[in-house]
Amino acid sequence: MGRNLKFLIPCALVILSHSAPAAKQPSMPEVLAASSPADWRPLDPENTLYVELPGGRVVIELAPAFAPLHVVNIKTLTRAGYFNGLSIIREQDNYVAQWGDPENRHPLPTGIGKVAPEFDSTLPPQMAFTRLPDGDVYAPEVGFSAGFPVARSLKLHKVWLAHCYGMVGVGRDLDAESGSGAEMYVVIGHAPRHLDRNVALVGRVVKGIELLSSLPRGSAEMGFYAKNEKPLPIKSIRVAADVPAAERSNLEVIRTDTPTFAALVESRRNRPEDFFKTQAGRIDLCNVPIAVRERPAH
Amino acid sequence: MGRNLKFLIPCALVILSHSAPAAKQPSMPEVLAASSPADWRPLDPENTLYVELPGGRVVIELAPAFAPLHVVNIKTLTRAGYFNGLSIIREQDNYVAQWGDPENRHPLPTGIGKVAPEFDSTLPPQMAFTRLPDGDVYAPEVGFSAGFPVARSLKLHKVWLAHCYGMVGVGRDLDAESGSGAEMYVVIGHAPRHLDRNVALVGRVVKGIELLSSLPRGSAEMGFYAKNEKPLPIKSIRVAADVPAAERSNLEVIRTDTPTFAALVESRRNRPEDFFKTQAGRIDLCNVPIAVRERPAH
Repeated sequence: MGRNLKFLIPCALVILSHSAPAAKQPSMPEVLAASSPADWRPLDPENTLYVELPGGRVVIELAPAFAPLHVVNIKTLTRAGYFNGLSIIREQDNYVAQWGDPENRHPLPTGIGKVAPEFDSTLPPQMAFTRLPDGDVYAPEVGFSAGFPVARSLKLHKVWLAHCYGMVGVGRDLDAESGSGAEMYVVIGHAPRHLDRNVALVGRVVKGIELLSSLPRGSAEMGFYAKNEKPLPIKSIRVAADVPAAERSNLEVIRTDTPTFAALVESRRNRPEDFFKTQAGRIDLCNVPIAVRERPAH
Repeated sequence: MGRNLKFLIPCALVILSHSAPAAKQPSMPEVLAASSPADWRPLDPENTLYVELPGGRVVIELAPAFAPLHVVNIKTLTRAGYFNGLSIIREQDNYVAQWGDPENRHPLPTGIGKVAPEFDSTLPPQMAFTRLPDGDVYAPEVGFSAGFPVARSLKLHKVWLAHCYGMVGVGRDLDAESGSGAEMYVVIGHAPRHLDRNVALVGRVVKGIELLSSLPRGSAEMGFYAKNEKPLPIKSIRVAADVPAAERSNLEVIRTDTPTFAALVESRRNRPEDFFKTQAGRIDLCNVPIAVRERPAH
């Protein structure tokens, strides 16, 4: 009885102090509004691409930690002006937007050739990994590392980037080593996770994906544009570090290894907004928003 | 020894008869090419909508088995001409395209009002259910029933349609009973499965989704079009049964309760195409293509 009484008293007190409706857990906008500057990181200009389209700029964050050889190739191609004047050649609904030079109008710069596949990596000894708690259909574990959605297998001792919406990959032919980086695609549909470990993913679109996802779909096989369709020209692709500071996109991305990011994930697993009558209580890797914002003025 | 020998002889024979490379399992195009007429079903004109846009026709198969009250409302609205001359008012990247009449230009026909939510249904005693073997992040079981992606819970004794790419839902306000069918959306991004059991899904786009998914994104909050943006007009929405036979889309959908469909699922769990170096061995509900084709001439 004594022990029961002990529990009764604090409970009654708790109920009294919460006579207003119980505080909801914060929504994503509330989590972001309460974040501190340390919860965000600027993009590294050396590993950021600007794809300039007639409608505006697409910003890509490259992932050298996961595909170092491809990233070197892509930056060499970019700095040689290889992509300038090429086009979006493929737009397949619920799948990918892709650019390249299928008619070999632009010669490949010296030093660009096939590279090792980089479809996955050996798990580094101390890789940051914010694991999601709800499992995954395709991989033993999924989560975030350095701002990217990743899957890992402790059994295989491997980690790989996951094909979520907005991820950027390197097109290739049948040969696993046939992707140089001269052809790239962006996922614009439901995550094609069957491509995981079959293609080198090299980064993620952090801004402007609607400029790629809203293009007319190509009517030829696999969504390539037919001869009578007009592919969208690419004005230029540049490494952000090569762009005058005043013309750069001043973006920062939420860190994925902080309590704030954990709160963001939780705000999406159980949506507190009044609209939701049944909370999922779970979340799929590719439904977690990796927030991006304009860098606040100092 | 005698038993071992018995095993050795057939094995040797098997190996001899397969001295050519082992036969691969069929790819999806091969599965479909080998299908019989009985593997397909025509769309029911009474439960098919034609959304006529300036760029062409979107065909929607309604799901009266899952949302009977909403389907009745939607057909009443359609037959009253309610949608003709309305617009696509919302286009949110990686989420939904939506139409409706936010300015109440069209009066609601008599008899159209709020209906019960229909976010899920009590599991019928003998529901066809082709279960997928690889699990799901959001629901205890997922699979297909009558051509639609569904989730079910034997514990809750419930079944519900799943928010995969192309699914059609009924927009509503905060009140769970505030959706009449006068406002509808189509999923055009990574499956927003957190909406499952929070909205009434009423069908699936079986043709023409690219006419909705490739529209310019709206710049106002939640992807609504801002005042200076031009929403795409809807010429008409009609029930297929009301359209002269010669003007109908003559489509059929693959049955989801046949060995052919099981083979299709398998062809996507383990992609036999030479491109794939690592087979996923698994598949997510929303990555299974529910094949649609023109009905072959007799």
